[in-house]
Amino acid sequence: MRNKNFKPYYAVIFTSTQNKTIEGYQEMAEKMETLAKQQDGFLSMDSAKNDIGITVSYWESLDAIKNWKQQSEHLQAQLKGKQDWYSWYNVKICKIEREYEFNS
Amino acid sequence: MRNKNFKPYYAVIFTSTQNKTIEGYQEMAEKMETLAKQQDGFLSMDSAKNDIGITVSYWESLDAIKNWKQQSEHLQAQLKGKQDWYSWYNVKICKIEREYEFNS
Repeated sequence: MRNKNFKPYYAVIFTSTQNKTIEGYQEMAEKMETLAKQQDGFLSMDSAKNDIGITVSYWESLDAIKNWKQQSEHLQAQLKGKQDWYSWYNVKICKIEREYEFNS
Repeated sequence: MRNKNFKPYYAVIFTSTQNKTIEGYQEMAEKMETLAKQQDGFLSMDSAKNDIGITVSYWESLDAIKNWKQQSEHLQAQLKGKQDWYSWYNVKICKIEREYEFNS
């Protein structure tokens, strides 16, 4: 899909490595996905994990990203993530300028 | 890391689903990673795959991305990918506007 009327939107690329013990992580990840989807301006989310985890969430605006970052239950999850689950993570805020797609 | 002298750079977010038979895919993926790293303007690359595959590559400029897209062996790989390996893929070109990082 190439769209002449393409409207820029935003992505958060969350790349991480986890500690060996990640008790409670999966439940929290699912809860955060559910909550993120309820946020204003949320568009979609993709995740995959092997040695490294990559989660990319897509948002209508930078404000929507900021609001999600500051959402109260998400703040608690972020704290827990730093304390218990992640050995490292990197968060990149990006503006999507164009895209194209293939379907077989 | 927050860096006041942050210099914007670019990402290609490649999200895909594969066909069941992907003979030759792994060798090609490794070859393309090796070649991408040799391109001018290449910065880094992260990949993970479960139901969905996500590969994010980072580049110094849009020109660097364009040059890689048109690299001759990469063009062959793209063709093969459409013919044989991918049932769907989406490519997003993004400008990274800021980032931060956590180390435990």
